[in-house]
Amino acid sequence: MGESLVCVKDFERHAFSVLPRSALDFYRSGAGAETTLVHNRRAFSKFKIRPRCLRNVSRRDLSTTVLGQKVEIPVGISPMSMQRMAHPEGECASVRAAQEMGTIYTLSSLATASIEEVAETAPRGINWFQLYIFKDREVTKKLVARAENAGFKALVLTVDAPISGLRLADIRNKFVLPPHLKFANFSGDKSTGINTTESGSGLNSYVNRFYDQSLEWKDIRWLQGITKLPIVLKGILTAEDAVIAADLGVAAILVSNHGGRQIDGTPASIEALPEIVKAVGDRVEIYLDGGVTDGTDVYKALALGAKMVFVGRPVLWGLAHSGEDGVKKILTILKTELDYALAITGCATIKDISKEMVVPEEYYNKL
Amino acid sequence: MGESLVCVKDFERHAFSVLPRSALDFYRSGAGAETTLVHNRRAFSKFKIRPRCLRNVSRRDLSTTVLGQKVEIPVGISPMSMQRMAHPEGECASVRAAQEMGTIYTLSSLATASIEEVAETAPRGINWFQLYIFKDREVTKKLVARAENAGFKALVLTVDAPISGLRLADIRNKFVLPPHLKFANFSGDKSTGINTTESGSGLNSYVNRFYDQSLEWKDIRWLQGITKLPIVLKGILTAEDAVIAADLGVAAILVSNHGGRQIDGTPASIEALPEIVKAVGDRVEIYLDGGVTDGTDVYKALALGAKMVFVGRPVLWGLAHSGEDGVKKILTILKTELDYALAITGCATIKDISKEMVVPEEYYNKL
Amino acid sequence: MGESLVCVKDFERHAFSVLPRSALDFYRSGAGAETTLVHNRRAFSKFKIRPRCLRNVSRRDLSTTVLGQKVEIPVGISPMSMQRMAHPEGECASVRAAQEMGTIYTLSSLATASIEEVAETAPRGINWFQLYIFKDREVTKKLVARAENAGFKALVLTVDAPISGLRLADIRNKFVLPPHLKFANFSGDKSTGINTTESGSGLNSYVNRFYDQSLEWKDIRWLQGITKLPIVLKGILTAEDAVIAADLGVAAILVSNHGGRQIDGTPASIEALPEIVKAVGDRVEIYLDGGVTDGTDVYKALALGAKMVFVGRPVLWGLAHSGEDGVKKILTILKTELDYALAITGCATIKDISKEMVVPEEYYNKL
Amino acid sequence: MGESLVCVKDFERHAFSVLPRSALDFYRSGAGAETTLVHNRRAFSKFKIRPRCLRNVSRRDLSTTVLGQKVEIPVGISPMSMQRMAHPEGECASVRAAQEMGTIYTLSSLATASIEEVAETAPRGINWFQLYIFKDREVTKKLVARAENAGFKALVLTVDAPISGLRLADIRNKFVLPPHLKFANFSGDKSTGINTTESGSGLNSYVNRFYDQSLEWKDIRWLQGITKLPIVLKGILTAEDAVIAADLGVAAILVSNHGGRQIDGTPASIEALPEIVKAVGDRVEIYLDGGVTDGTDVYKALALGAKMVFVGRPVLWGLAHSGEDGVKKILTILKTELDYALAITGCATIKDISKEMVVPEEYYNKL
Repeated sequence: MGESLVCVKDFERHAFSVLPRSALDFYRSGAGAETTLVHNRRAFSKFKIRPRCLRNVSRRDLSTTVLGQKVEIPVGISPMSMQRMAHPEGECASVRAAQEMGTIYTLSSLATASIEEVAETAPRGINWFQLYIFKDREVTKKLVARAENAGFKALVLTVDAPISGLRLADIRNKFVLPPHLKFANFSGDKSTGINTTESGSGLNSYVNRFYDQSLEWKDIRWLQGITKLPIVLKGILTAEDAVIAADLGVAAILVSNHGGRQIDGTPASIEALPEIVKAVGDRVEIYLDGGVTDGTDVYKALALGAKMVFVGRPVLWGLAHSGEDGVKKILTILKTELDYALAITGCATIKDISKEMVVPEEYYNKL
Repeated sequence: MGESLVCVKDFERHAFSVLPRSALDFYRSGAGAETTLVHNRRAFSKFKIRPRCLRNVSRRDLSTTVLGQKVEIPVGISPMSMQRMAHPEGECASVRAAQEMGTIYTLSSLATASIEEVAETAPRGINWFQLYIFKDREVTKKLVARAENAGFKALVLTVDAPISGLRLADIRNKFVLPPHLKFANFSGDKSTGINTTESGSGLNSYVNRFYDQSLEWKDIRWLQGITKLPIVLKGILTAEDAVIAADLGVAAILVSNHGGRQIDGTPASIEALPEIVKAVGDRVEIYLDGGVTDGTDVYKALALGAKMVFVGRPVLWGLAHSGEDGVKKILTILKTELDYALAITGCATIKDISKEMVVPEEYYNKL
Repeated sequence: MGESLVCVKDFERHAFSVLPRSALDFYRSGAGAETTLVHNRRAFSKFKIRPRCLRNVSRRDLSTTVLGQKVEIPVGISPMSMQRMAHPEGECASVRAAQEMGTIYTLSSLATASIEEVAETAPRGINWFQLYIFKDREVTKKLVARAENAGFKALVLTVDAPISGLRLADIRNKFVLPPHLKFANFSGDKSTGINTTESGSGLNSYVNRFYDQSLEWKDIRWLQGITKLPIVLKGILTAEDAVIAADLGVAAILVSNHGGRQIDGTPASIEALPEIVKAVGDRVEIYLDGGVTDGTDVYKALALGAKMVFVGRPVLWGLAHSGEDGVKKILTILKTELDYALAITGCATIKDISKEMVVPEEYYNKL
Repeated sequence: MGESLVCVKDFERHAFSVLPRSALDFYRSGAGAETTLVHNRRAFSKFKIRPRCLRNVSRRDLSTTVLGQKVEIPVGISPMSMQRMAHPEGECASVRAAQEMGTIYTLSSLATASIEEVAETAPRGINWFQLYIFKDREVTKKLVARAENAGFKALVLTVDAPISGLRLADIRNKFVLPPHLKFANFSGDKSTGINTTESGSGLNSYVNRFYDQSLEWKDIRWLQGITKLPIVLKGILTAEDAVIAADLGVAAILVSNHGGRQIDGTPASIEALPEIVKAVGDRVEIYLDGGVTDGTDVYKALALGAKMVFVGRPVLWGLAHSGEDGVKKILTILKTELDYALAITGCATIKDISKEMVVPEEYYNKL
């Protein structure tokens, strides 16, 4: 059967058949009516590829440079919480796969493996740490310090979640973190007040109790003041916010609607990307996640101005299939598909993907 | 089972399974081929939300001011006739739920509870009275006087129903008001000539016999002359009519296509809203009903310029589920969803929802 | 069961269940992949109605004037061949229904009742005669003379059928006119060379043998020379042809794609209408057929500039149901729906339907 | 049963039911998610035909001139590999059908019949030879020389396949050329290093080993230097590449996305056509393949500026049905459909199809 899993959707189908309902729904679901969840994917098909031919593509190189570091493929892993629901090795399996593929792994604050575990299992990895700013700033400070100490290369601050979105499936399921798992980054730190195993029907209200809903742009300065790590803002969807971010001197913006999990009705990530590239593309690095299922999705995002693309759920499907090996399979599939996309569109390197190569479908509807 | 009803659609599904066919069809159906009925809902997804981030949303306030009165949430209840088909307490249950939630209840002329009953059961409510102008103006005058006496705060004149629309389901069902119910506002008033229990296969022709099809704009002046209550015109769909209404000095316009029940083929309410806001948004208050099923629908209507949003059928589904409690559940769901929408888009108050925050999908299809 | 047939689609469903496959397919089918057949109907939903309110609609009048004659409703009957396959009384039943409703009946050249039979059964009818120009001009001349003698009021020249379209269903069915029926207009006229009962698998090639494929615009002058009857050109879909027609002084243009039966891929009739109205609307009367299923479709066509709308297949479904009575039911349904549409959009008469009242959906997608 | 196969889709359905899965999938499938495969066809319906009437169409002529040679119909056969999987006579059957119909047959390099076999079986055919440029230029040179000697009339260089696309169905099936077949053009030529029977799970990697991925525009000059045959570039999808091609003096461009088999997400061929026609339509001949299923598709491509249209899969379905006879049936169906399209739109000849006769659907959505 493994043999017949030849694309991300195959792994998705497999995961849908093997994961427990509650974990699957937590991973799979989006906010509200889930139209954005669906739209994130479909919106890629609204952009068309204009391949060029007769260019020397005999030596292809998919590597790129992100925040000054070389990554082997422009596809990294987005932060996702509680990966041990998908596989016993959870985040540790994912990060090793990323390390082996030479790409970025972003550890979620709400991971089921700790900063230190992850650093230890993938010491040569390009590891980033996803951060929420908690009401108790000391909690955040400690996390930042631990990430720095553990050799993490960047902080990814989630800015689209002053509260956690309404996901109906989780509410129906009264979703709980399974009792044998814990929020490993808070384990043993009684001072945070965070119960590392609690979750239950009130995961939302629980999480919401600790997030600082009063967070403002000025708090970015506070964060800049306590770390030397580059800061990536994840969850920006408008040119207006992108300009503020760039003015504040953040290192990068990750265009994202949180996988459709925060609020239903936003544009797809790929739709939101162009206005942000146009506004600040020359001042900060811009990345994208949301709906990426195929190497041509990656290609389109790069053509539209993203420097790096991140995937979330596909990694979970790989993890559910066969842990580290499954995640590598997913990344390899995307890499191969992207490689083919480059070759067939006349690009030998990532830089060769120019913006004329991807156009909205309206381009072809002109009178 | 109640536990698993977490959104309006859940209550709708429930109501579809428990209501008698005839009542369900009366509530559910729209005019003609029912494309507008469907379109009213779907059209909301044609508008996209552009969330802003890193704004202090720790103290949120969903209240607003409508016709000079504070309402706790910008979601009120539209006039709907014959609510006792959904629950024995009918309009009385609905109005108490609205009162408890601190929002507007609009009593239909064709209610199965009278003006006085409603006022008595919800004395602290923000109660509005929906009005038709009958051929016999004395009937209308009496209704207005009774509404004033009963402490109603506004008159909502339905202007899109010189006759009642062709609803095929009702024709097929030969819809009749169940024999144990009556049009309570006309009960005991023999002078109106209105048979308070009649309906039957000829509900349409019956109703049409009493409505004044010769009604014109000048009759608004007549109504203004017999009441001090603010007048809301319900059912305006064009900028042209909005301008006339504003010139006549009405207090507000409720943009509505009567839930798709009058004529098939109109724009969705949410589509019609912008041209009306543009034409008279600075001169009269503008509200909307039609297809609102989710807090993000409310959010979109507010961003596009509505000051208040009204829901109809969702209230009936709540009523069918558990009377007053069910209606409160519906309003609470919408309130919670709207609260989340505010928080996640960077709005602490209703006023913070600015017009750049919602755009038609075409915004993202630009070349 | 008859009771539950409340709209044209109900009659259509009924006809689909009772008509013999071969006749049904002949009536129902369109050319090629039948996308235009489907599109003709759906395209109406691309136009939205903008109702006006508070206008006196207490006295409504659906009558209009066509070619100088009063018709009671702006809905007539398009030419359709072989109506006796649907009901033994065929064209005679249809024309009597039209006469009773005070509207136009257009008799097909390829009818199964003759010019004289139709005139005799509906002597007070507004009867028009549909014409092809045959290679043998004498055949055409005789038909014209007979139509004039029989009191027909106009000639409808089909200009979109130099050959008969490829209808796959008929080819599959090897469609034949049932043996007990005949092309009544050619019966007994041996000189035409037309076998009035032949048809069979080669109906197309048979028909094509007699049509004059060399017909050109100058031949309109020939036709004008042999008759005093007003000439309506049926099947024009472009502004360019409309201008030529107007320059030649024809009385009217019937915008039509022949019910999607000639070539797949044309615009829907309702889509083609506006450019023709714009080009020659002030010089000739313009009518429309194609996909009209509902009174709101009629309304939309009128708003977009048609003076009269014709229906085809709905009449056949009525005929299949109950002959003359079924056709009256169909026309009555459309009349009632149109009457409601007028009332609810603030129109007392056909003239009140102004062009701002119907807009393409793009109107509501503006940024 | 044969009787009921009246359109290309009928033959397709038949082939789907009789071909072995592996061969069917190879023929049928497209790259990646196959959205372009589907879109190629559907995109034709986005263009609408504007028929003209009352033009003399009594003498119709479907012939045209391509590269200076008369072809009887503007529909030729695209290169497709391994046609003997569909019928024992494979390419030989196809080329004879093309010869008999007086149109172009393009032999694939990867055919299961050799250049010489094809020339011998269809000596009066207008035969073209499809070419890849191999790493070993001598292989290519020999093929060119053989094609010239065998009387082929043009070389069709595939420029959209530096590597062969990712077709998931083939990967799942571990597609192999059946053992009794061989790549006939390389048979007996040990010097090429090409194993004429190998294929197996690694067909892609196998093919990719021999294609020259370093091919560039300058190599066109090399090809021009070794042959006097006109060169057609197949697989151009952008105006930019079309201009380069024209500047290099190629004879023609075949607008194609390789039947959706190279990379998913390109425009449909019919969408890409207009920008290429606009850019170089006056300097080189332009052809199209991709999704053509119906005579009206051919018509649309011609109206949009293609001089010739090629079909691929339909020929395979005909071949699978009944070899040479089946292919003739397919070409005859398309010819008949095109003939009807000409007649009904007022065109007596191919030249009469003017560009105003086909418009994108947006033409009809204007406000």
